[in-house]
This record gives sequence, C-alpha cells and structure tokens, in this order.
Amino acid sequence: MSLEQWERQAQKGRDILNNSIPKQWLAPADSLPPVTQKNVIDFPKKSGLLSERELSITDLSATQLVAEMGAGKLKAEEVVVAFLKRAVLGHQLLNFATEFLADEAIARAKELDAHFQRTGKLVGPLHGVPISVKEHIGMKDKTCNTGYVAWVDQVATEDAHLLQLLAKAGAVFHVRTNQPQALMHLCCNNNITGATLNPYNRTLTPGGSSGGEGASTGFKCAPLGIGTDIGGSIRCPAAFCGSYGFRPTSMRNPLAGAKVAAIGQETIHGVIGPLSSTSLEDIELFQKAVLEQEPWDVETSLVPVPWKTVAPTRNMTVAIMWDDGCVRPHPPIVRALKLAKEKLLAAGIKVVDWEPYKHDHGWKIISSLYYPDAAALQRKMIRESGEPVLPLSEWCFNYSRAVPLTHPEAWELQYERDVYRDDYNAVMKTRGVDFIISPTYPGVAAVYGESHYWNYTAIWNVLDLPSVVFPSGLTVDAKLDALTEQDQKYKPRNEVDEREWEKYQSPERYEGAPVALQVAGRHFKDEETLAAAKLIEEIIKDGKKVSKL
Amino acid sequence: MSLEQWERQAQKGRDILNNSIPKQWLAPADSLPPVTQKNVIDFPKKSGLLSERELSITDLSATQLVAEMGAGKLKAEEVVVAFLKRAVLGHQLLNFATEFLADEAIARAKELDAHFQRTGKLVGPLHGVPISVKEHIGMKDKTCNTGYVAWVDQVATEDAHLLQLLAKAGAVFHVRTNQPQALMHLCCNNNITGATLNPYNRTLTPGGSSGGEGASTGFKCAPLGIGTDIGGSIRCPAAFCGSYGFRPTSMRNPLAGAKVAAIGQETIHGVIGPLSSTSLEDIELFQKAVLEQEPWDVETSLVPVPWKTVAPTRNMTVAIMWDDGCVRPHPPIVRALKLAKEKLLAAGIKVVDWEPYKHDHGWKIISSLYYPDAAALQRKMIRESGEPVLPLSEWCFNYSRAVPLTHPEAWELQYERDVYRDDYNAVMKTRGVDFIISPTYPGVAAVYGESHYWNYTAIWNVLDLPSVVFPSGLTVDAKLDALTEQDQKYKPRNEVDEREWEKYQSPERYEGAPVALQVAGRHFKDEETLAAAKLIEEIIKDGKKVSKL
Repeated sequence: MSLEQWERQAQKGRDILNNSIPKQWLAPADSLPPVTQKNVIDFPKKSGLLSERELSITDLSATQLVAEMGAGKLKAEEVVVAFLKRAVLGHQLLNFATEFLADEAIARAKELDAHFQRTGKLVGPLHGVPISVKEHIGMKDKTCNTGYVAWVDQVATEDAHLLQLLAKAGAVFHVRTNQPQALMHLCCNNNITGATLNPYNRTLTPGGSSGGEGASTGFKCAPLGIGTDIGGSIRCPAAFCGSYGFRPTSMRNPLAGAKVAAIGQETIHGVIGPLSSTSLEDIELFQKAVLEQEPWDVETSLVPVPWKTVAPTRNMTVAIMWDDGCVRPHPPIVRALKLAKEKLLAAGIKVVDWEPYKHDHGWKIISSLYYPDAAALQRKMIRESGEPVLPLSEWCFNYSRAVPLTHPEAWELQYERDVYRDDYNAVMKTRGVDFIISPTYPGVAAVYGESHYWNYTAIWNVLDLPSVVFPSGLTVDAKLDALTEQDQKYKPRNEVDEREWEKYQSPERYEGAPVALQVAGRHFKDEETLAAAKLIEEIIKDGKKVSKL
Repeated sequence: MSLEQWERQAQKGRDILNNSIPKQWLAPADSLPPVTQKNVIDFPKKSGLLSERELSITDLSATQLVAEMGAGKLKAEEVVVAFLKRAVLGHQLLNFATEFLADEAIARAKELDAHFQRTGKLVGPLHGVPISVKEHIGMKDKTCNTGYVAWVDQVATEDAHLLQLLAKAGAVFHVRTNQPQALMHLCCNNNITGATLNPYNRTLTPGGSSGGEGASTGFKCAPLGIGTDIGGSIRCPAAFCGSYGFRPTSMRNPLAGAKVAAIGQETIHGVIGPLSSTSLEDIELFQKAVLEQEPWDVETSLVPVPWKTVAPTRNMTVAIMWDDGCVRPHPPIVRALKLAKEKLLAAGIKVVDWEPYKHDHGWKIISSLYYPDAAALQRKMIRESGEPVLPLSEWCFNYSRAVPLTHPEAWELQYERDVYRDDYNAVMKTRGVDFIISPTYPGVAAVYGESHYWNYTAIWNVLDLPSVVFPSGLTVDAKLDALTEQDQKYKPRNEVDEREWEKYQSPERYEGAPVALQVAGRHFKDEETLAAAKLIEEIIKDGKKVSKL
C-alpha cells in the first residue's frame, strides 16, 4: 500500500530525527527493558550503559555543573557527552526527541573548554550546561514544524532570541524535543515523530505541550530544558514527569522566534520558560542568566523589569487550594496538599485555606480566547498537509464555539479578563495571601489521551500569575491513595467533575507516578514566587538537598 | 419644528454643562471680544475681568503653586477660584468645557487648606493643584458620554483609577472638558456640546481628541490637564494650543475607568497622560505623583516600572526628522526645526538628521488596527441615538476597510507591528540616536475640520515610544513663513502630500498659531525623554524660564 502524501511528508520529519541520533550510543535492543515495563526511571542506573561518572554528572544540577566546571573538575565536553548518552537512551525508551544536535553540541563544548583553559574563566553563568529545547523554538538553519506535518520542511532563519541569550551565557543545546499536534494538548503526540512517554509509567502521558521537555528533564537527559506555556504546557509536563517547571509572568522572557500558527495573537500571551531536572535553584539560574542580558532592549514587547535576587522569607502567608470549585482532585494530590499543610504549619509558616475565586469564570474567559477564530487557522494548517486531526487537537479546538467571535465579542472577553485579574489580585490582597499552593492537574500524570482538564494550570495563565511546579517527593501509593469509603460516596458536582473523578478508578492506574505541587504568586512577583516555592519545597522535604558529585 | 429624539437627548448633555457653569463669574456678553476676533489668548489680561493676583496665580506652574501653598503664601481655595474664573471666561470664548465642578472643587480646596492649617503639611505632591479632565475619564456619580449622544445619561459608578491617585496626591478637579464624537478626530466637535475653539485663532481647531484639554491648558484654565492618546490625541491639542503634552509608553499610567466604546480592544493601546499650561517640569510632577503610588498593585495590566528621577544630560544624540517621507511639513514647522538644530548645535549637542524608517508602513499597520471590526461598534453607538455621523468621524472610520478583518488578518498585523517596533528600535540603536525631534503635525493648528494627517504623532503610537510636545516659542509669522519660490515649485509625492501641502496657501490662514516641536525617545525611556525634552526646550529658548508670582 502506498503512503499518502502527508505520510511521506511526515516521514521527512522522522528522517531528520533518525539521521541525527548518534548511533554509537544507541543501546542494543536486547539490553532495553520490555515495552510492557512501565517504569523506566531507574533504567540508566540499573542498565550499566552509563558509567558511574556519567550517572553522577547527569544527576547534578546546572548550578553544580557550572561550579564543577569553574573549579576545573569537569569539562564541558564530558558533561554534554554524558547527557547526550542519557538522552539517546531516554529517547529509545520514551521517544522524546525530534532531533539530536550531538556534533554541534560537542563542538561548542570543546570551544568552551578551550576558552576556560585559555582564560581560566567561564564564558557565562550557564557555561557548559546542556539544555534541551522544545522543537517549535526556532534554531537557525534547522527545520521547525511546531507539530504540523505541513511545516516539516520549514527552516528557521535565525535562532530564537532566548537561545541567543542562553548561548551567550554558555549554554549548549544538545537535543530538540517533542510536542503535540497544534501545540495544544496537555499531552505529547503528533503525526510526525509520534507519542512521547512518561518515564515513571509508560502508559501515562508525559504531559504537554512541552511533553518532550517533561521527559527530557524527568529522565535527566538535560539539567535544564525550555518549554512554552499558554495553559499549563510547562507546568503540566514538569508535574507529570517529576521535574521542576516555571511559568513566568508574561512579557518577561523573550519569546521572539518561537514559531506558532497564530503568530501575533495576543488575547492570551504564551510564555517561554525553563524546566529543571533537579531544582528550583536551577530555574533561578536560568532566569537570571536571561534577564540580566536585558532582552527588552532588543525585543521591545518585553517589559523592562530586571531579575532581582530575592531571599526566601518565612514571613509569608501561604494558602492551600484543596479544590478549584469545579473539579475534585484525586487522592494522591490531596495527600500531597495535606503533607504541605502539615509541614508548613510545623515550620511556623502561616497557612490558610484558599477559597477559589470564580475559577469557572476564568475558564470561560480563557477557553473562549484561545481560538477567537474558532481554530480556523489551526485547522487550516492541518488540512494543508492532509494529516489526521488528533483527538486531543479536536478536544481543544472545541473550546471555541463553532463560528469566530466578532471583534467586539473578543474585546468584551479581554475586558472581562482584565477585570478578573484585578479582582483576583484584590481578593489575594484582602485575604492577606502571598502564595497559593494548588494541584497542577486533578490527578497525577494522566493516562495517555485522557488529559482533558486544564484549569488547575490555565487559571494562572488567564490571571497571568507566575507559577512554579515542583515534585512533592511523594509518588502514587496503592495503599495510601486508595479511594476511601467517603471518596466512593462522592457525588460529582457536574459532568466535568464526574468525568475527571471517574478517571481515578484505582491508584494502580497511575502506578509509579510522582505527585507534584504548584505554587502561584502575585503578578510580576516571579522572584518572590520562586523563592517561596524553594522554601516550601525545602520544608516539605525536611531540608533534603539534591546529591553532590 | 419639533426636535428630533437625538437632539432632545443631546440637550441633556448641554443642560448638564449649562447648569454647572458658576453664573457669578460669567462675563457680560458685551465685555467679550467679537466672535470675529480670532486671537483671544491675551483677553484675560486685557479684559480686566480677573484681578492681577488671579492673573498671576493662573500664570504659575503646578510646581510653583504647590511651593507657594507649602510656604503658606497661597491658599488652595483662592487658587481654584482663580482657575475657575479663568475657565469660565475661557469657556465663554472657546466652548471647551462639558461640566464645571465649582462647588466640589472649592469644598475640596477648603479641606486642603484646613489640613494645611492643622498640620502645617501638604497632603501630597499635587496639593491644591486644579486639574481639568477630559470628559470620558469617569467620575463617580457623574455622566460620561465619551462624545456619543447615546451615552449622555450614562453615569460612572466610580472615579477612574488615575483620578483616585491624583486626588490622593492633593489634586482638585474643577472642570471637565470636551472631546470629539467617537473620540477619534484630531479636532474637537460633537453633537452634544459642539465645537471647541483654539485660543490663538478661533478659526482653527484646538486639536483633538483631547481638544478641550488643549484649550484648557492653552488658555491657562488649569495648570495641568488629563488627556488620552491613541494617535496623537494628547500631543496634537498641546501642539495646537501652545501647551505641553506627554504620551507615556503604554501600560505605565493607569487607564481603568476611561470610558471608550471598544473597551477591551488592545491591538493599539490608548494611553492616558498629562498636558501642562506652563512646563515639562509639571509633566514630571504629574507622572511622579501618579507612579510613586504604584498603580500596578491595583491595575494589574500596568507594568511595575517605578518612575525614576533622571537628570538631563548633554551627552546625547538628537536627530531631527525634517519630513516623514510621506507628507511635507509646512514652513513654520520647518522654521522651528531649523531653530532647534541651530540652537542645539550651538549648545554643543550632537545633532544628526533623521531618515524616517518606513513611516508609511507604520501608518498602514496602525490605521488598519484602529478599527479591526470596520468601526462597526462606533457606528452602532452613533446609530443608537440617531445623531449624525460627523465628517471627521467618517474620515477615521474609513481608515479601516469596509469589512472586518478576520482574526488571523488582525494577528498578522499585530505581528508586523511588533516586528516594526523591534526594527525601529534597532535602527535607532544602530544610528546611535537617543531622541528624535519631529513635527507634531504637518502644520501648526489646522483650520477647523481639516485635521486629516495623523502620522506625525500616530507613528509613535504604533511604535509605542514616549513622546513629548512643547511650544518652540515661535508663532506663525506672515513674512518668515511665506512660501518661498522653491516652496511654490514643490511637487507633492502623492495625493496625501498634495492635500496637506495645499492647505498651506499662506501663513495668514494660520495667523497667531504657536509652533510646537515633538521629541520622541526609546520604548520605556519616558523619564529620559522628558528630561531630554526639557533640556532641548531650555536650549531653544535660551534658558528662559516661566514667570514667578
């Protein structure tokens, strides 16, 4: 049977990927775990395919790596090779890459090493840090398909602004990562390179849309990764894959050169931001390295707000949002929220409960504003190649009504959005709440294809609040997370609540999945929110630190 | 003949105005100059209707007024009464008010005086400063018609955010001012309170849309006024009426509570900003008083960029834009630009010529984005009452094409806008230019109904650059501004150029009009731009200062 035209086109994207894989590091098929093995997170350690030193390197944070390189104890080349090896293995298990950049990355690392040897100095605060990059963030002379088969041939003419800044700070880009069709699933499947899997349980989604970044950082294929987020696309993969993710306030991080179909749409601003395999400290390192270069001097839509160093303070009021008033979180999430509350109280932090303020209204606004044109542009992009519309694409396209909004209808929603932002801000101030701890999603990592409910993350997008995701340290536990009698009697409030609640038939469905928490802070309080999240994580984990070399 | 329904409705707006005029200060009709007298700028001095002390008070800047009140030499009450008296006279001559607020203003001034007497302290940096306010900026419990007959009954439920902040800083609002139908003429006529005139020549427009503010500050009915600007609406009236005007970078000054038909439209951000009767120092006073209250803490769409004090520096490069490449400026404007160049060079400032960068492209973008819905909303607002569409409303509605843009078409334009901004910014940096001196309009104040060409101001709106207007000190001169032989041979480049050039048949047409200059600076360099404009003005005027009490 001959391939359809779109399949031949999609094959080009797969060829780019396959030709880029450094074959010398491919693990023999028979050394890999069976495809039925769900949890592969420990495979690098158990397989013997990476040396002890490589394992140690890939366990380090970016901050630690830079310190080690600065002390002359590590070379950039061995660092990037270690991460490349782990990434190749990760890709074999999780299908998270769209293109490896091994030769360039190693060449760049050698340059960095030469510079250090020559001058005794690092080139910048990210010297030699391997960073994985979501595919739709343009790289000069490389294709950029944004999850559309129609675009597999399109070549970016320059590096995205953010990549230019990171490169100046010393970063090394070693692998590009997967994203869903049309960029708008909290999942990660497309018709080009297919579905990316979750390293903790391969029946689960790594989340999305920055799902390749979730897998990359979750499996420690990179200490830092770059995602984009308009409804949860950084935070959801971070939560699902046990890594760290940060959605900054919009118009802080440079976005120019990230390719999307609806370029110029600004009803809801997408943001670009970091994921980290190990720590919020690395998120800060990333943010500082970018913003100290004053990107607003070039990309004028950014606000000229420098990144400032903020020390965490215990003198804060943290609210716990147990439920958003629309969809009940699953037992493992509630368990993590309880743990947070207990630990914070024990540490003397002021903790209150958060009564959500009109989250259904927030969802009505943001879901209507994602596709003011009834997703005509996205559907056209898909029709252009003839590729099938994937179910989760159809799902999000249907957030909009069947016909485009008129401009006045869209303006009315934009006005409502601004009023809602001001009102929510006033509510936080009136209640004296600095930060809100909440679920990132009704459950832990969703079963593949089931990521339907966005509003535990999208609410902070419509409100444009900085929000941080970190692993609580818990994983799903068959006993602790079993449905209680009371749970079994739960009467859902509405159809959506029912749909989401029914997905939690048993903890076993989510076996092995990490449980994340999300912390949101006030508009433009990015630094304070990160500092608070760092302190909260430390308290919840009893001060446990990440491992050292 | 019975009045039409819309006329009866419009009458309500006139009744509000007429009932609000403090009758005790109305000058007898026979004491007023004949309606054929064009220039009335000196009438307050010549008429004997104001006392010497009142004339002195109304000649002072806000900065001086506050200093005098702080020294106990002036009382807020006598200050507001002096400005009210001048405003009543100004209104009789220029029809610039929509509502007087005499009783409230005097009551508030008395409170301020009592506070000062009790504590020995001023309530804030604008203690006792009378400020006139463009009508569409909402005031609690007062009507707000925005130039639409359909809205003459609409009552604002709270004070606009900016007014709240100014009131906290001690300001006294004493008069509300006129605006054109639909807010979008560089002129000032509507079907409610009619046409406002230019104090320097009553056959000329005061400019618009903040034309009432132009007349108010130009005639010194208020030391400070508040306008709004999406294409020149603060700067054009300031230029036409010989006062000072400032268009800040958008999202700095609080805009909430300014009523417009297309609320929520954000393709081009309107801004709110000050006009001053006397000085750029007062513009700074206004900006600082507002932004030191951190309005972004309440109005979350604002950027958290504090106002900083910037000292002017002679170490700058100033470019002169002689022509925007589209429409040739009239002789008086060119004379002012030449004066600026000469004086700046003599003062040792680095001056270069500015080659405009694609201003026609900028106009294509902004004119298409004013009315993405083909002005359907504005036309509907006008149809609602049945009032006639005024010619200059029709003029600007026709900037848009006949049918609405699709959303993707609008996004494409927004993307082009952002690219144009970045490119223009890069051009300024590459050329090493800090500030651009340019015309504000092809000519001085336009003949009534002829304000057609917006792009000497609108260009800085599409680019979102801070821009300042100040009087050059020149006025139209029959001899110096006569068309030269060379001028008479000028072959316009296009129809628009021809139309605008033909308006300059002779200097006499613009007799008495002041000649303004505009200074634009880089995005978010509001403070630097104001400081530079202040220095430039001082140099052009040989250090001449405004008069003291």
